[in-house]
Amino acid sequence: MTNIIARIKEEKPLVHHITNYVTTNESANVTLYWGGLPVMAHFKEEVAAMVESAAALVLNIGVLDDEQVEAMIRAGKKANQLEIPVILDPVGAGATDIRTDVAKELMSELDLAVIKGNQGEITVLSGGKAEMSGVESIGEYSKIEQDALNLAQQQDVVVVVSGAEDIVTDGQEVKRINRGHPLMGQVVGTGCMLSSTLGVFCGVEKDYLAASIAAVTAYGIAGEKASQEAERPASYKIALQDNISMVNDDDLIDL
Amino acid sequence: MTNIIARIKEEKPLVHHITNYVTTNESANVTLYWGGLPVMAHFKEEVAAMVESAAALVLNIGVLDDEQVEAMIRAGKKANQLEIPVILDPVGAGATDIRTDVAKELMSELDLAVIKGNQGEITVLSGGKAEMSGVESIGEYSKIEQDALNLAQQQDVVVVVSGAEDIVTDGQEVKRINRGHPLMGQVVGTGCMLSSTLGVFCGVEKDYLAASIAAVTAYGIAGEKASQEAERPASYKIALQDNISMVNDDDLIDL
Amino acid sequence: MTNIIARIKEEKPLVHHITNYVTTNESANVTLYWGGLPVMAHFKEEVAAMVESAAALVLNIGVLDDEQVEAMIRAGKKANQLEIPVILDPVGAGATDIRTDVAKELMSELDLAVIKGNQGEITVLSGGKAEMSGVESIGEYSKIEQDALNLAQQQDVVVVVSGAEDIVTDGQEVKRINRGHPLMGQVVGTGCMLSSTLGVFCGVEKDYLAASIAAVTAYGIAGEKASQEAERPASYKIALQDNISMVNDDDLIDL
Repeated sequence: MTNIIARIKEEKPLVHHITNYVTTNESANVTLYWGGLPVMAHFKEEVAAMVESAAALVLNIGVLDDEQVEAMIRAGKKANQLEIPVILDPVGAGATDIRTDVAKELMSELDLAVIKGNQGEITVLSGGKAEMSGVESIGEYSKIEQDALNLAQQQDVVVVVSGAEDIVTDGQEVKRINRGHPLMGQVVGTGCMLSSTLGVFCGVEKDYLAASIAAVTAYGIAGEKASQEAERPASYKIALQDNISMVNDDDLIDL
Repeated sequence: MTNIIARIKEEKPLVHHITNYVTTNESANVTLYWGGLPVMAHFKEEVAAMVESAAALVLNIGVLDDEQVEAMIRAGKKANQLEIPVILDPVGAGATDIRTDVAKELMSELDLAVIKGNQGEITVLSGGKAEMSGVESIGEYSKIEQDALNLAQQQDVVVVVSGAEDIVTDGQEVKRINRGHPLMGQVVGTGCMLSSTLGVFCGVEKDYLAASIAAVTAYGIAGEKASQEAERPASYKIALQDNISMVNDDDLIDL
Repeated sequence: MTNIIARIKEEKPLVHHITNYVTTNESANVTLYWGGLPVMAHFKEEVAAMVESAAALVLNIGVLDDEQVEAMIRAGKKANQLEIPVILDPVGAGATDIRTDVAKELMSELDLAVIKGNQGEITVLSGGKAEMSGVESIGEYSKIEQDALNLAQQQDVVVVVSGAEDIVTDGQEVKRINRGHPLMGQVVGTGCMLSSTLGVFCGVEKDYLAASIAAVTAYGIAGEKASQEAERPASYKIALQDNISMVNDDDLIDL
């Protein structure tokens, strides 16, 4: 994993997103800034054809829609058939029953590579109860590591829990990552940008646990560097994106 | 009202938006920067469940859609039942008949807390004629104060007219507010961001007239501060959003 | 053409967009920064009414949708009837069959003023074969000038090919434009912003070849100026947009 960012810049993995319209511009730009190529396509008649040329598929349920679930399943099944990794961001699972149900349907229909959520989302999907305020996780989750392990084992998937401390697990190994900066929590879409980052990294590295650890770490490093340039949230978002384009393999040398 | 911003930061009101995809990222970020929590959800099967946990509901018809009106009515009726304030931004009323009709349908079906529009939109909804260029109000509105008063009385609602000078009225009291900066008119979405701001402020203060006056003033102050940092529009938008996160109750001491 | 930017700022052309939700905010802001007024409206019941007051119509298929094609055809036919110029951005033609088909359907149903695409898109629409990665053109296109000429002649339209060197042709005259900066290729949406720019310029100048040459040049100049202010992509995007608001007719004196 000493050269994963170089490989991204070399291979330019195409990351097909089916995602929400709140943060789709950020997701696309972040994909590009890492060195990948983004494509956002959700029309159900098109998604299977589009995913054929992709290196990864990111499914984000941030704004549910009538047609979206079917498009996600079609794209996901094609990705599974072609062994293209599928990353699920179950935004707001636990906030409404329908979001929880949709996330579970996607988990049941598709063979996922990575599930990335906040503490509330991961807890709900592992079978626990969570406290959500809209799509934000609130409350305390003392069993979050166990919940993440359970979900990873149940689904045979890498689970990434985003929070002040991030957790990455494949159901066996557990890695806690203390990178990033509190300002990341004060900008809309930093969770979605992390999902895109996971798509880019898994698009070049088939060891999804290693790819996810590298992705979470690299993203956190960009967040730290940005905090040296900006203290207020809108400027910070720009600085975060700028720094994403600057992280390199030397920054990941300790992994 | 001497502590409304402190209350926002303490209570973190969840503001449910059903809004357009042009400025939804700005609306979400501005909600967060004031201290609220944004949630954008427009799927008609979900909106009633989502609004249950909200402190305010913002309906913005900036990009009309097949399904949107029904989702807005479902969410609005649930909000009315739970006494959650509903803010309407009738973007482009007067520009096409269908927008005028949709705005009137929402006014007729729902019990609104605040209607926020530009001079053309408010004039049209009060029963007058307006000149619009797309969703922009053009032309002169010499009777705008009377129109705002009429609309507020007809609908038993707080009316906010945005413009070089903003007007806030509950149909009895009229407040004219001379804050803000001309650069706010040179950035797409400053009207939508004001609607989100009204959602945040009304989410913690049940006196919607006072909350709206505070919201319009605070937003204008952020606009003024931003003008000291940036002179060109894209930079100005970042500075405006940054300054929104910095306005505090001391800035509102004269209200 | 020595005063086209002054005319834009004087006439404030309303540019109606039916476009994707990835870059719609950028498209709207760029329209405003040049001096036009943007309106984004895609509801099929509304588009014909909205286009009536427009000076130009921009159709961008960046994110295909069930309802979008019908809305584009309705708006386009009304625009044709009123002699309002229609600009087509066939995003991703060649990437999936459905995108190629939709682009061809729009070319066949509508009388277009300008088609703007990358090398792969223009090659495909002229009848050749292209290599696309998602919506990005990859590969070499040695016959691109001939393909652009062919497409312009077949469709009786101005063709703009964006790339390191831009090509503008009406099927007779060919203009190669070496402006802009490589950083423009590292930001999502610079192609969409160029389409909006073409909408603004064609909204005030009925000689669409001259208007397109001015638009491409002016946009490239903004890109060059921005590169003196920012080296990283997210900052560069802000600088690009800022500089769009600053380009004036003196910058175009050599045209």
